[in-house]
Amino acid sequence: MKVYGHPASGCTWKVLATFLEKGHAPRFEVVDITRGEHHTPEHRMRHPFGQVPVLEDGRFRLFESRAIIRYVDAELSGPVLTPTGSQARARMEQWISVECCNLVPPLMELVAPLLWGRDPGAEALRRARSRVEAALDVAEGALAQTRWFVGDAFTLADLSWLPYVQYLFIAGHGALVTARPALAAWWERASTRPSWQQVMAGSGRAPEARS
Amino acid sequence: MKVYGHPASGCTWKVLATFLEKGHAPRFEVVDITRGEHHTPEHRMRHPFGQVPVLEDGRFRLFESRAIIRYVDAELSGPVLTPTGSQARARMEQWISVECCNLVPPLMELVAPLLWGRDPGAEALRRARSRVEAALDVAEGALAQTRWFVGDAFTLADLSWLPYVQYLFIAGHGALVTARPALAAWWERASTRPSWQQVMAGSGRAPEARS
Repeated sequence: MKVYGHPASGCTWKVLATFLEKGHAPRFEVVDITRGEHHTPEHRMRHPFGQVPVLEDGRFRLFESRAIIRYVDAELSGPVLTPTGSQARARMEQWISVECCNLVPPLMELVAPLLWGRDPGAEALRRARSRVEAALDVAEGALAQTRWFVGDAFTLADLSWLPYVQYLFIAGHGALVTARPALAAWWERASTRPSWQQVMAGSGRAPEARS
Repeated sequence: MKVYGHPASGCTWKVLATFLEKGHAPRFEVVDITRGEHHTPEHRMRHPFGQVPVLEDGRFRLFESRAIIRYVDAELSGPVLTPTGSQARARMEQWISVECCNLVPPLMELVAPLLWGRDPGAEALRRARSRVEAALDVAEGALAQTRWFVGDAFTLADLSWLPYVQYLFIAGHGALVTARPALAAWWERASTRPSWQQVMAGSGRAPEARS
């Protein structure tokens, strides 16, 4: 399998970490988003929104990291990252949806000034921070009762949350995580996994990664 | 199974339509979001973000409509709404992610003034409309080649898109759909299904539903 992505892209991290958790490595081709390569007609053929990552498996082409990690987990040998029981599986989907719907939209606003130099303005930042805190509070409540988002097993739900919590640390908002004991303990467990350490080492973000 | 929801909530429509497609009906309890019942401590115990819908299956409780429809599809007898092949399944997940990440955030901005009396301002509306059009263009490209989002089978991907396209019609932006022939034909097929007709009839939105 081949992944088109960028070393500084959180959605790319998620996909690479999934491969590593399974004990595999994809062929990797950099689409240099810092030089606008994601907007070329060539890349638009791979991804109609001009984003990364994209997966190729023979002639099958797939975009959207949340779809890609499910496919990689289902297709590759190695540890299974999706619970088999229907209720545990539903719980995993719930936490992926919370990441996608409740956490990421405000979090991207909050980290924009420090990560990408785009300032949404003080009032928007205040609202974004409040909504990020609400989502982290809900995660804290869940993680106070279980080791990972779904019981005792590391799943795609944990992988889905990792890049965005990493963004908080990189952008100087790590205190939002460390102030919540169960979430902080989860972060310590998750971010020290060899898969994540390896992805971060290749990200160009290593020096700030735990700050 | 029991669903807590509201007849005017698109996420509730999605869950009810999934039950009907399977040939089932849940017990339904209205959480009156027009009277703030979603913010009561009682409902917060069911849904930590104070939203609808919530599913109960015995003692198992689940929130997030995208997790609920997968669970309902897996657990109930009736037509299967998830492809069995791994590539088709990945394609379904891709279109659900596009709905969630690319379509819904700007679409909710665009329909806010007419649906909920909240005006994000002219510039935000212009940007939202442009991003909605980009997502609809991508859908148009896909639906020009297949009957449903994933080949010839109606799946959870189609169910996921239905409420938001419905919102466009209700809010007077239906021309964004009808101007795109393949998407318009999909809408005609999807919105005339008995399941959707029945959900809309109970929504209090019926008179505007096709306008």
